[in-house]
Amino acid sequence: MSIRPLGDRVVIKRIEAEETTKSGIVLPGTAKEKPQEAEVVAVGPGGLVNGKEVKMEVKVGDKVLFSKYAGNEIKMDNIEYIILKQDDILAVIE
Amino acid sequence: MSIRPLGDRVVIKRIEAEETTKSGIVLPGTAKEKPQEAEVVAVGPGGLVNGKEVKMEVKVGDKVLFSKYAGNEIKMDNIEYIILKQDDILAVIE
Amino acid sequence: MSIRPLGDRVVIKRIEAEETTKSGIVLPGTAKEKPQEAEVVAVGPGGLVNGKEVKMEVKVGDKVLFSKYAGNEIKMDNIEYIILKQDDILAVIE
Amino acid sequence: MSIRPLGDRVVIKRIEAEETTKSGIVLPGTAKEKPQEAEVVAVGPGGLVNGKEVKMEVKVGDKVLFSKYAGNEIKMDNIEYIILKQDDILAVIE
Amino acid sequence: MSIRPLGDRVVIKRIEAEETTKSGIVLPGTAKEKPQEAEVVAVGPGGLVNGKEVKMEVKVGDKVLFSKYAGNEIKMDNIEYIILKQDDILAVIE
Amino acid sequence: MSIRPLGDRVVIKRIEAEETTKSGIVLPGTAKEKPQEAEVVAVGPGGLVNGKEVKMEVKVGDKVLFSKYAGNEIKMDNIEYIILKQDDILAVIE
Amino acid sequence: MSIRPLGDRVVIKRIEAEETTKSGIVLPGTAKEKPQEAEVVAVGPGGLVNGKEVKMEVKVGDKVLFSKYAGNEIKMDNIEYIILKQDDILAVIE
Repeated sequence: MSIRPLGDRVVIKRIEAEETTKSGIVLPGTAKEKPQEAEVVAVGPGGLVNGKEVKMEVKVGDKVLFSKYAGNEIKMDNIEYIILKQDDILAVIE
Repeated sequence: MSIRPLGDRVVIKRIEAEETTKSGIVLPGTAKEKPQEAEVVAVGPGGLVNGKEVKMEVKVGDKVLFSKYAGNEIKMDNIEYIILKQDDILAVIE
Repeated sequence: MSIRPLGDRVVIKRIEAEETTKSGIVLPGTAKEKPQEAEVVAVGPGGLVNGKEVKMEVKVGDKVLFSKYAGNEIKMDNIEYIILKQDDILAVIE
Repeated sequence: MSIRPLGDRVVIKRIEAEETTKSGIVLPGTAKEKPQEAEVVAVGPGGLVNGKEVKMEVKVGDKVLFSKYAGNEIKMDNIEYIILKQDDILAVIE
Repeated sequence: MSIRPLGDRVVIKRIEAEETTKSGIVLPGTAKEKPQEAEVVAVGPGGLVNGKEVKMEVKVGDKVLFSKYAGNEIKMDNIEYIILKQDDILAVIE
Repeated sequence: MSIRPLGDRVVIKRIEAEETTKSGIVLPGTAKEKPQEAEVVAVGPGGLVNGKEVKMEVKVGDKVLFSKYAGNEIKMDNIEYIILKQDDILAVIE
Repeated sequence: MSIRPLGDRVVIKRIEAEETTKSGIVLPGTAKEKPQEAEVVAVGPGGLVNGKEVKMEVKVGDKVLFSKYAGNEIKMDNIEYIILKQDDILAVIE
């Protein structure tokens, strides 16, 4: 079973603190603050979204930084995901 | 008797907690929180909605995840439905 | 005497509780809550509304569901009507 | 002396309660509430208004229903008028 | 020295209460309320304003009615002027 | 060293109270209120700004009137400047 | 490892107070207020962003002034960066 996001939405999975340390990315704040780094799990088709043409710039497997609090959290097969609009993704880490 | 939604609206029927467990999707929160998984019952024609071209991406029978609190609830033949804009549907579960 | 709504406006007449029961549609809430089912009495011409092209999707005689609190109430020949924008009509009941 | 409204504006004159009774239109509320029925006195040219194409749908002499509180009141030669945007006119009474 | 308004802005000069009485226009309210009648002193070029095409409909010398509180007040050579957007001008008095 | 504003932004320098008196422009309010008269120091390229075509109407050296509180203040080589969008400039004084 | 910003986003690195003094730019406020001068580290591709065409006007290495509080702060390899939309960059310092 998988999730197919609609329009310009993207499904991402948070990267845990351990991995974050490896990649050298740390978000400012206390240690209890969840990092905003994630991996892209599924990407919507883009195209005409609310009458605006949107081109998808991320792909499955991309490591991304995203706006805290953006999107909706869901849990599937006991794993937490976030569904957000691509515009809430700030950057790709390469 | 049936419902024909206008514009980019979609009629959905919540999937009960039992079914939700089967498909493995659980939304975060307390057990009392209603899941946001639903089945599409009727789909509007899309096209020009408020001057914006909208393409319908869901079809009758699709299992979808939708934004909590989105849309209007109605009861027909004793069954509860929700009428919402397609943009309030986050993803299709496949 | 009749009412010709402008732009994308529609004139509707609430369907009383008795009729609502016949058609099997009941809106959730207390018994005192007015149902949101109505019959279309007049339809504006659509076309260019505030610079946006709007296509009218309802016609006189349609049974519709509409957003509670939407539109303006008027009384003509002792009958209450509601004038609302087509976008406040959720669906047609067939 | 006359008033030439700009853009998509329309000048209307409220129809007094007596006339309202004749035409059979009564707006809901207390007897002290001013009715929203009026006669069109002058019509702006329409066309490009704030970058949006607006087509004027009312003409001088039309009886109209308009949104309460809409527009600006002015007094000219001791008669009260209201200047409002055509979009605040709900319908023409025929 | 003169003022050249930008875009769709217009410079107007309030017409004093005395003149207002002559032309027969009185705005409702207390005697202390400043009338909203004014004379056009300078007109911007219109054209593309914030990406929207605006056509100027008033010209220098026009008597106009304008929205109270609209625009910015300035004093030049001891005379008070108001700079407002043309959209805040309701009508031309002819 | 100089400042090159982006998009439809303009860099201006307030004209001091003394100069203001000379040019005869005084803004209403208390003597402590800073005048809104300024000289244009640098002009952005205009063109496509947030998807809207903007044409620059002011040039370096223009005396302008601008909306109080508009823009961001900066200090460079001990001189205060304001960076604002051209739309916050009301008029050019000639 | 590097950051590739999406759409019209730009990654910048604040220029420390010492450098700020050298370049002669000081932002108003107390000495404790962080300056808004920064160096561009990475630039998004621009193009179609939310249905609007955006042309990138800054390039890597540019010294820029940006709106305080704009954007999201991140820390990578122990260095703080800010990811913001190009529209939050006021000007380039040359």
